[in-house]
Amino acid sequence: MTDIVHAQSKATWIWYPGDFEIWLGNKMQNRRTERDTFLPPFWRMDSHYVLMDFHKVFNLAAPEEVRLYTEGDYNVKIDSKMLHGHPQTITMPAGQHRLSIKVYNQDKVPAVFVQGKTVVSDSSWKVTYEDKEWIDASGMVSSQSGTQWLQAGSWNFNDPAAPPSQFKLNVKPQSPVKTTSGPQSLLVDFGKETFGFIQLHGLKGKGAVSVYYGESKEEALDTAACETLDRLPIEQAMAKDTTMALSKAFRFVNIRYNGDVRIDSVSMLYEYSPVVNRGSFRCSDEQVNRIWDVAAYTLHLNTREFFIDGIKRDRWIWSGDAYQSFLMNYYLFFDSPTVTRTLMALRGKDPVSSHINTIMDYTFYWFLGIYDYYLYTGDRSFIQQFYPRMQSLIDFCLQRRDKDGMLEGQAGDWVFIDWADGLSKQGAVSFEQLLFCRSLETMALCADLVKDRASEAKYKQLAADLRSKLFSYYWDAGKQAFVHSRVNGKPTSNVTRYTNMFSIFFNYLDDAQKQGVKQHVLLNDSVQQITTPYMRFYELEALCAMGEQGYVLKEMKDYWGGMLALGATSFWEKYDPREKGTAHLAMYGRPYGRSLCHAWGASPIYLLGKYYIGVRPTAPGYKTWLAEPALGGLQWMEGTVPTPGGNITVYCSTRQIKVKADTGTGTLRFKSKSKPVCMQGEIIAKGNNVYELQVEKGKQYEVKYSSL
Amino acid sequence: MTDIVHAQSKATWIWYPGDFEIWLGNKMQNRRTERDTFLPPFWRMDSHYVLMDFHKVFNLAAPEEVRLYTEGDYNVKIDSKMLHGHPQTITMPAGQHRLSIKVYNQDKVPAVFVQGKTVVSDSSWKVTYEDKEWIDASGMVSSQSGTQWLQAGSWNFNDPAAPPSQFKLNVKPQSPVKTTSGPQSLLVDFGKETFGFIQLHGLKGKGAVSVYYGESKEEALDTAACETLDRLPIEQAMAKDTTMALSKAFRFVNIRYNGDVRIDSVSMLYEYSPVVNRGSFRCSDEQVNRIWDVAAYTLHLNTREFFIDGIKRDRWIWSGDAYQSFLMNYYLFFDSPTVTRTLMALRGKDPVSSHINTIMDYTFYWFLGIYDYYLYTGDRSFIQQFYPRMQSLIDFCLQRRDKDGMLEGQAGDWVFIDWADGLSKQGAVSFEQLLFCRSLETMALCADLVKDRASEAKYKQLAADLRSKLFSYYWDAGKQAFVHSRVNGKPTSNVTRYTNMFSIFFNYLDDAQKQGVKQHVLLNDSVQQITTPYMRFYELEALCAMGEQGYVLKEMKDYWGGMLALGATSFWEKYDPREKGTAHLAMYGRPYGRSLCHAWGASPIYLLGKYYIGVRPTAPGYKTWLAEPALGGLQWMEGTVPTPGGNITVYCSTRQIKVKADTGTGTLRFKSKSKPVCMQGEIIAKGNNVYELQVEKGKQYEVKYSSL
Repeated sequence: MTDIVHAQSKATWIWYPGDFEIWLGNKMQNRRTERDTFLPPFWRMDSHYVLMDFHKVFNLAAPEEVRLYTEGDYNVKIDSKMLHGHPQTITMPAGQHRLSIKVYNQDKVPAVFVQGKTVVSDSSWKVTYEDKEWIDASGMVSSQSGTQWLQAGSWNFNDPAAPPSQFKLNVKPQSPVKTTSGPQSLLVDFGKETFGFIQLHGLKGKGAVSVYYGESKEEALDTAACETLDRLPIEQAMAKDTTMALSKAFRFVNIRYNGDVRIDSVSMLYEYSPVVNRGSFRCSDEQVNRIWDVAAYTLHLNTREFFIDGIKRDRWIWSGDAYQSFLMNYYLFFDSPTVTRTLMALRGKDPVSSHINTIMDYTFYWFLGIYDYYLYTGDRSFIQQFYPRMQSLIDFCLQRRDKDGMLEGQAGDWVFIDWADGLSKQGAVSFEQLLFCRSLETMALCADLVKDRASEAKYKQLAADLRSKLFSYYWDAGKQAFVHSRVNGKPTSNVTRYTNMFSIFFNYLDDAQKQGVKQHVLLNDSVQQITTPYMRFYELEALCAMGEQGYVLKEMKDYWGGMLALGATSFWEKYDPREKGTAHLAMYGRPYGRSLCHAWGASPIYLLGKYYIGVRPTAPGYKTWLAEPALGGLQWMEGTVPTPGGNITVYCSTRQIKVKADTGTGTLRFKSKSKPVCMQGEIIAKGNNVYELQVEKGKQYEVKYSSL
Repeated sequence: MTDIVHAQSKATWIWYPGDFEIWLGNKMQNRRTERDTFLPPFWRMDSHYVLMDFHKVFNLAAPEEVRLYTEGDYNVKIDSKMLHGHPQTITMPAGQHRLSIKVYNQDKVPAVFVQGKTVVSDSSWKVTYEDKEWIDASGMVSSQSGTQWLQAGSWNFNDPAAPPSQFKLNVKPQSPVKTTSGPQSLLVDFGKETFGFIQLHGLKGKGAVSVYYGESKEEALDTAACETLDRLPIEQAMAKDTTMALSKAFRFVNIRYNGDVRIDSVSMLYEYSPVVNRGSFRCSDEQVNRIWDVAAYTLHLNTREFFIDGIKRDRWIWSGDAYQSFLMNYYLFFDSPTVTRTLMALRGKDPVSSHINTIMDYTFYWFLGIYDYYLYTGDRSFIQQFYPRMQSLIDFCLQRRDKDGMLEGQAGDWVFIDWADGLSKQGAVSFEQLLFCRSLETMALCADLVKDRASEAKYKQLAADLRSKLFSYYWDAGKQAFVHSRVNGKPTSNVTRYTNMFSIFFNYLDDAQKQGVKQHVLLNDSVQQITTPYMRFYELEALCAMGEQGYVLKEMKDYWGGMLALGATSFWEKYDPREKGTAHLAMYGRPYGRSLCHAWGASPIYLLGKYYIGVRPTAPGYKTWLAEPALGGLQWMEGTVPTPGGNITVYCSTRQIKVKADTGTGTLRFKSKSKPVCMQGEIIAKGNNVYELQVEKGKQYEVKYSSL
């Protein structure tokens, strides 16, 4: 957020928006290995535009000396006059003049850094990939009105000597908690799930070293089946330290060597994104505190160049996984650049040739991510820049509707929903239509923001039509639930949780329908259970949205507490309490296929922040917000929720609520058995034991009440 | 052509079709400098897909050992099973198996070279940029039917040690014809226009060397205004040879140095494409022979990585210029890879965001180039591969039509037509509609070839409608000509040559209309004259198509002979006989702005081959062809015309015609005052002094006749 606010005041490296993000996404997603084999994504990877024109018009009171830095070959124009050669310093004359820099780079993203006193590169510059500057036979240069200019992209590359192509995550040395030596082997335990570059100290001799990584001890020891490894031929008489080329996920490392190889010791360079925990949570239940801490660590490990799915594998950007990280991020780091970077890398470039990650639902989560991004941050500029790419993606979807306006999986479309046995993907699945409807609503919102009135009306109508069809096609009044799908124009009889739980927090149901869904689906054990933290996220959110914090707290303690009880130091891709022993490590037909550190495992961060501490925006960027604390059976809790304008802090016990906010206008809403008392402000009774208090920024509010 | 025929029999480097061509196009087009300043194109440059999947299914009688080479990180699968690590040699088992190689490369084009006994990489492999290989939670891999596979692209990279990214043109040393020494200077004359890397021999001392290039002596000597130069700081005690980093166009080089710098001598590395003159022409007029030779040399110099406009500048791929090179090429080198490479680089990738080179007419020349490519080569595979990109480009055009279905220049569209003073680009210019119509006809042809029946019908109807509108909107019966344009729905009264001359060789006119255009436009000096060889090409072609070879020969001798008389050693971008002295060197407001070696100056190659020797295909790939020699006043001529299946050789004097062909079924057509006699075959009288003789391949035909 700091970058968005202060981008105008200092020089920073700039590029075509989305291009650095796509380039970095290629780099990161093509670093995955399976054992020692390269394992890249199976969807299209785009690339940056190799030739870029940057410009800005300045109006200077006095001439100004300006230093230029570029990534790529370049030329410089003042107005339409080209300067000789490759100037590194230029003088911008007084008056109104346009400074243009054209840069070519095939390998890296064309970027510039301009450093004068007031003439600096920042996001106020314009960029285009085709400047259409024509020259006629007599030498006249004309710059064409048909050129499409965008605002420059930037991040935090504020040092001319550290250009975007040199970006690396931070590292710091870490030591193991235990090293066990064997014959020509070392078993190293770092005490908890971690990520980084293994370092072998004092390595010498002739032979080979193999490094077997394990998220579990079993995995590290199983040299034939562990998911990742490194092999190094060694031939060095003098001892020296060696660092592995690729960073990996592990808790345990099993090092085997032969010949006369010697290794003094092993450590690691922990590799991480320098995002900061702005959000916090503490409560009277130590198990819940531990769940929050491990969830925060899990999210931190998976918050890297982008929000990735898991650190062992896939180490890719999956839209459905990233969408949950976005939501958790708003309650932990509130790091907007990681959100927009992830959205840009996911979207890639036109033309759209398949769904995002090839998965239909994942296209829709991309739209939902934009909806939430605007709500939480209030940042319109991202939507303005990327509205055309939003349009081409929704057009791709609209063109694939069947005669009833529904989306069925076509050849090459993956209908994912969830990992669940026997889940049908046939026909028009109600869950996909629901997400499609929400995506159309997002498009209407964004069309409004960019003042594209015709499209706004179109998207609104499409969304309204689809929402009405959802009910006419899928709602079963007898079952009081949406059915799973419609095959050959007829609804199936199967009920699954997905559509039903989403429709609650999308607010698509009336109160009677909500209660019906709650009783007949959410709390009904005969409806197929969810076993991934991925869909547990939404199931528990739906229950929280209906005031079931007490029930959810118990579920959370059982489910995430269950992983902790099995020794988890980060949360997993999948957890099925019915499984035993090493079955917890297996997936995809491989004994250690399961990721033990998966972003979607961290959802308590979001649930505790949004539905217990209870803070959420009610207008974009927390201009207005709501704090509706719900103890759910806890004795007390306190937490901090980050926002663009500072933090919101809430303490709540069974007798007292304290709120303080740096930003916006808030409403504290709570229930009390007796008439509450406050030191500051005026409590308004809303009836039915509900009270509200308006919260102005900068003031401390304290309420005495008695919880129901 | 050899590559197309023999590609199946040997291993060659393969890639995604078009990607190497786009990558190489970026590299070449971003090598332009103006003096010592980088001067890149002003249109969008695309890039290769960075992640590529290659596969082919083999059916082997016995297992086979196969060597693998890639450009980029890679993995290998046999069927859907991934092999460990980065195997360099694999064993393909007996039976039917699929070999897949996935390659990632951000900087260069992902490419593979596979060398077994029968398992070899070639254009029969399939490639895709998104393999959509999904894995489910249980480990099942499924390859999706929605994947779009193309045939692999290839050229002539048949050596595993010389991958595509290392491609360079050939070089050979050449010496100057004269070196004149002055105080701290050398003026070097290479005797004729040439291209390459200047080499300074025995260079030593401390100081600076400047190299000023000139296509003329005046330009080389004018250090302040010459178009290209190099500057080198020198500090070396030991004499050594230095080669310039960039190849340049020049005849003269003016080398200036200071300090105690010493240079022993200067030579060059001539840089060239190893295309071979398969076509030839000789006749009784030595000036015409010299014109043909200089035209062939001009085309050779401009035939490089691609067909470029000019070797001094722009050194870019311009569609209108390239289109003429394609046609000349069919009568000189018949090098198909240079044609398709140029077409691919011009087209780039989707989405279409502007016309090719930003010029509306240049989009249409791209389609015309495809039409001719198919006619001359009969190569369907190129059309099959690139049909989707043809469709998206024509869609771009169709979406820009006005309410009358006409194309006017919109913001960002350059309507070029020709360099000509005062030429109006306003409204709907008839010339653009004419080219658009021909493009639609090309689309109908290609839709037929790929059996896209619905589109074929659509394009045919669109073309027919547009052709009829051309007459109703622009044909002026009084003027017996098409008028130039239509502004605000009303035809203008101005007549220009462009639409009128193209409509003749497009065969859009009936005989009466043709004669009208000939008299009232082509041979009418009051209609604005053409001063570029670019449009002279079409003007003279139109006259030839109407049997005016005598007139055209005189024009050719005047115009191209005029350049030779001024000392030209290659043909120019522009020639106006009315200009004097150094005015011939100037253009674009710069004293040496004019290119003295421009591809479009070489059109006599095409005119002499197609309309004097008179050989042209009448079915794709010369399956059938016509030889219709026309002396145009010459006493005798002989020439060779290359075709995909060998050469066609024609000798013609006023009394004798000899024809021999390696390919197809030909028709020799000629006029004779008296009844002709032949040694072989049967002459058929067609009336009106016209006779025809059928020519079978491999036989020598000789006709005695007496020319009219």
